[in-house]
Amino acid sequence: MRNIKMIVSYDGTKYYGFQTQPIGNTIQDIIEQALQVLTGEKISITASGRTDAGVHARGQVFNFITMSPIPIERWALALNSRLPRDIRIQRADEVSLDFHSSHFAIRKTYRYSIDTNKFADVFERHYRFHYPMPLRVLEMREALSKVVGEHDFTSFASQRSTKPTHVRTILDVRLEEDVGKIDIFVTGNGFLYNMVRIIVGTLLWVGEGKITAADFERILQAADRSAAGPTAMSHGLVLWEVEYE
Amino acid sequence: MRNIKMIVSYDGTKYYGFQTQPIGNTIQDIIEQALQVLTGEKISITASGRTDAGVHARGQVFNFITMSPIPIERWALALNSRLPRDIRIQRADEVSLDFHSSHFAIRKTYRYSIDTNKFADVFERHYRFHYPMPLRVLEMREALSKVVGEHDFTSFASQRSTKPTHVRTILDVRLEEDVGKIDIFVTGNGFLYNMVRIIVGTLLWVGEGKITAADFERILQAADRSAAGPTAMSHGLVLWEVEYE
Repeated sequence: MRNIKMIVSYDGTKYYGFQTQPIGNTIQDIIEQALQVLTGEKISITASGRTDAGVHARGQVFNFITMSPIPIERWALALNSRLPRDIRIQRADEVSLDFHSSHFAIRKTYRYSIDTNKFADVFERHYRFHYPMPLRVLEMREALSKVVGEHDFTSFASQRSTKPTHVRTILDVRLEEDVGKIDIFVTGNGFLYNMVRIIVGTLLWVGEGKITAADFERILQAADRSAAGPTAMSHGLVLWEVEYE
Repeated sequence: MRNIKMIVSYDGTKYYGFQTQPIGNTIQDIIEQALQVLTGEKISITASGRTDAGVHARGQVFNFITMSPIPIERWALALNSRLPRDIRIQRADEVSLDFHSSHFAIRKTYRYSIDTNKFADVFERHYRFHYPMPLRVLEMREALSKVVGEHDFTSFASQRSTKPTHVRTILDVRLEEDVGKIDIFVTGNGFLYNMVRIIVGTLLWVGEGKITAADFERILQAADRSAAGPTAMSHGLVLWEVEYE
C-alpha cells in the first residue's frame, strides 16, 4: 500500500469546481477517472481543499492510496497522458501512509488577479477579473495589510459558511501592480468559503474611493458579512501554493 | 465617407485564421458581422496581413470605409459589446481616406513563445509551444542574429509561397529567456508565409544541438526550404505589433 502526493495545476474555466458533485464535470472526477484507467483501481483522492467553479489552481495538492507498483518518477507523465490539457500534474512524491493533504497543510496562498486595462487582455480573459476603473492602489495596499494576523473573518465569509469558528490567521499579503494588472496574494493557515473573493470585492470599494482603508478595517472588525463588499468573480482566483511541514 | 483604423487583439485558438474563407469562422468574418450589426452597412475590412489558423494577435491593424456618424471615441466600446470575448478592439482612429492597413505598414513584429517547463503551464497552453527539452539558449540567440538584414528567405518560406521575390529585411530580433519560457521577437519590413514559424523550427534544431549557429546561417544562405527545420506549431505565434509612418 502506497500513499502518493501530487501537485496539480488546472484551468478551472470549464469545470464545476474541484470536488465531486452529482452533476459531474469536476476536477476530482476527471483525475479519479484517469487514475482508474492508469491503475485499474477505483481510487478516491483527498485534496488540500475544494476550489469553486471557475477557480483555477497553480499548485493544488492531493493524495491517494494505491496498490500500483508504478515507479514514482513515472506517475506524473503517465497520468498527464490520460488527462485533458487543462489539468496538468506538476509532480508526484511518495509520502508516509498517514499524510493527509488537508489535515497536514500549514499554509495556503491564493492569488487574485485584476485586469485594469480599458479593454480586456484577450489572453488573460479567463484568469483576470476585468475591472477597467481607475484604482487607488496605495489605499488598497494599506487596506489589505489590515487582514494580517488573527481575526474573526465573519465579514469576509460567505453566509453559507458552516464552520464552527471564523477565526483564521493571515500570515502574509502582497499587492503587486504592473501595467494593466494588479495581483493580490494572500497567505494564511486556512480560509473560509469565498474569503479571498470577498476581501477583494471590498478592496475594490477601497480602490474606487467608496471607502477608506480605515473603513475596511472597521468592516473586518464588525464581523458582519453584510458590511463588506461583493464577492469578486471566481475566474480571477488561483490557488497558488499549499505548504506542508 | 470616413476611413476608420482599428487595432485589435484576438485569441486565434477557435478560428480558421484571420482572412475570410468559404467555410467561415474567421476573425474577419466575425468583425465584419459585428460592424454590420453596429452600422447597418455591409463593411469589408482590410488588414495589415492575414494570420493563420491558431495564430493570435496582440496588435493586428485593419481599416474600413463607412458612412456611419458614430463619434470616433465610441467605436471601440460599441464594437466590443458586439464581439465575442476572444476578440477585443484596443483602439480606433479616424485616418485619411488613402490609408491602407497593408500597403502603409512599414514594420511588423511577431512573437513566438516556447514553454520549456517539464510539464506544460496550463494557463499558457494555447499561447506557448510546449517543448520540454534542454535548449542551448546562447547558441539559439547567436543563430537568430543571423537573420537580421536583407536576405533571400526562401529557406524559411513555405513552399506554397507565391511571392515574386523572397527577399525581405529583418530589422530587429530578440530572444528573452525566463523561468520555464523563451520568447522570440522578430521585426521586419515584411514576412513570407510561415516565415517566423520555420525560423523557430530551425532555431529549435540549434537549441537541441542538432546543428550549430553557423549551420543555421548556411541554411539561410542555401535558399532551400528543404534545408531548414520544421514549421513550429501555430499556437505559439502572436502578431505583436504593426507600425506605420
